[in-house]
Amino acid sequence: MSRTTVVALGGGHGLAATLGALRHVTDGLTAIVTVADDGGSSGRLRGEYDVLPPGDLRMALAALCDDSEWGHLWRDALQHRFPGGGPLGGHALGNLLIVSLWDLLGDTVTGLETVGRLLGARGRVLPMAAVPLEITARVRGADPAHPREIELVRGQVAVAKSPGEVLSIALDPPDPPVHADTVQAVLDADWVVLGPGSWFTSIMPHLKVPDLAQALRTTEAGRILTLNLELNTGETNGFSAADHLQVFAAHAPQMRLDVVLVDPSVVGSNGQREQLTQAAQAMGARLVVAPVAQLEDGHKHDTLRLAAAYRDIIDDRR
Amino acid sequence: MSRTTVVALGGGHGLAATLGALRHVTDGLTAIVTVADDGGSSGRLRGEYDVLPPGDLRMALAALCDDSEWGHLWRDALQHRFPGGGPLGGHALGNLLIVSLWDLLGDTVTGLETVGRLLGARGRVLPMAAVPLEITARVRGADPAHPREIELVRGQVAVAKSPGEVLSIALDPPDPPVHADTVQAVLDADWVVLGPGSWFTSIMPHLKVPDLAQALRTTEAGRILTLNLELNTGETNGFSAADHLQVFAAHAPQMRLDVVLVDPSVVGSNGQREQLTQAAQAMGARLVVAPVAQLEDGHKHDTLRLAAAYRDIIDDRR
Repeated sequence: MSRTTVVALGGGHGLAATLGALRHVTDGLTAIVTVADDGGSSGRLRGEYDVLPPGDLRMALAALCDDSEWGHLWRDALQHRFPGGGPLGGHALGNLLIVSLWDLLGDTVTGLETVGRLLGARGRVLPMAAVPLEITARVRGADPAHPREIELVRGQVAVAKSPGEVLSIALDPPDPPVHADTVQAVLDADWVVLGPGSWFTSIMPHLKVPDLAQALRTTEAGRILTLNLELNTGETNGFSAADHLQVFAAHAPQMRLDVVLVDPSVVGSNGQREQLTQAAQAMGARLVVAPVAQLEDGHKHDTLRLAAAYRDIIDDRR
Repeated sequence: MSRTTVVALGGGHGLAATLGALRHVTDGLTAIVTVADDGGSSGRLRGEYDVLPPGDLRMALAALCDDSEWGHLWRDALQHRFPGGGPLGGHALGNLLIVSLWDLLGDTVTGLETVGRLLGARGRVLPMAAVPLEITARVRGADPAHPREIELVRGQVAVAKSPGEVLSIALDPPDPPVHADTVQAVLDADWVVLGPGSWFTSIMPHLKVPDLAQALRTTEAGRILTLNLELNTGETNGFSAADHLQVFAAHAPQMRLDVVLVDPSVVGSNGQREQLTQAAQAMGARLVVAPVAQLEDGHKHDTLRLAAAYRDIIDDRR
């Protein structure tokens, strides 16, 4: 196990996959998690208490749980959802626990550390901003009746579900405060890993937090961008792998990358691979094509193959 | 610290006071807790999910938490209530945690053990019955317009708040299933302690669960009944200390007691003390008058004085 420090940025299932892999590679793991969710249990908690949406933070903590009976028990408890459609129905217990600890301890970072201790978590989890954020997106054809018009769509759920083509996102507030721990983790890292995950709603938001984006630009860490296995999701219908890189560059104009990691299935043709290689080189990065998908479900990352790919990248650099 | 096994029966703040005291006396402590609450967070959880009301169980667990930073942190987290008047407002986090673990683990006793492990609890907490119960009470003058009429009042909150005179309580269902662990704890005990607590809604219910009452009658344990510091609460307005014993006897006709423990303030006059001595003797018990109240608030039990009183009783018998 390496003592290399790695910071993984993202949200949702994509970040959970990264963390599940990186915990096999390093003891020095920090997750920096999007706080712009406005749907489901998190959205209801924001509505009732104006807190950071805890859902993605909870999922990251669960992915880092200790691999013991105790760790798994509390992971399962935190992920447990109240059934039914009543006042509690749909809430994840872990969200309620995190929000209670924030209220009790009066500090976001300490609250997350406490849940981490409960789980015996193999790493730290930090929020990307100190206040809840709202995503706004410029979307072409958000209203199918006007397919060429560009409209502003507000809120993560609305953006993710919009039938139109997302062009770019911004945050409200546009310059949110960021915890010092979050900035410092990026500055101190040996490697930062962005993606996989929902491109516009889990990855791009990190680039639009000015203090975090500056840390990502100025850190001496190597920067890895991991592309998704399934490119044509709702948010990115019709986007090629190279388009994903261009979206990234447009949201972080001065950011250089060192590695773009992609599964061979995503660049099936020579033309696709060449196009992506050039897009990566334009950002300073080499393309690493490595098998990271599950054999049984090519749309899901295989934890150990993804771990092997990250380890090979990290070892090469040393 | 003694290895004497002690079972404390009750609910709410009264049971918490007993447990806070007995944890100083023995390592072999089990709480058996009423499950008839239908108010507040517990009542709402019963309404939404038809589960055992977790509130009194949570409070007992909190009273047994390890005396460490970790134990106190999780005690405070479990006791933490969501603020405001929204869908979560008023819920205790510990209630939500307990109900989630029951759903996840599919077993009441294992779920409570798990919370106990989280807290490093100094003892076990078991429910008095395996299903949620409803208290019904015969109340004289429940309707102040008809002060002599006897009515049936249904539900713990309604009974506790009734302006009339409670005559007796019963349970619905009248013969609920009881966990084997609960019965066995009573049968294996060296001592059982009933009270203090709300007489009709926290103490008497245990006597009306047939399987539990039989265990209490047949166990070879010594039986201690601890009277309240404040006799004239809503449920027992106008009841003397001796009246409390008579209520007890009426709800558990064949049960013998070994010790009735009372603070000197409750039997201030020679007449009161004589009356209580005789009522105790009628049930086979000796009266122990010992100072167990706080100096600063005579209506609250002093943890260490109550511990000393229990220890003296337990040591005498050995």
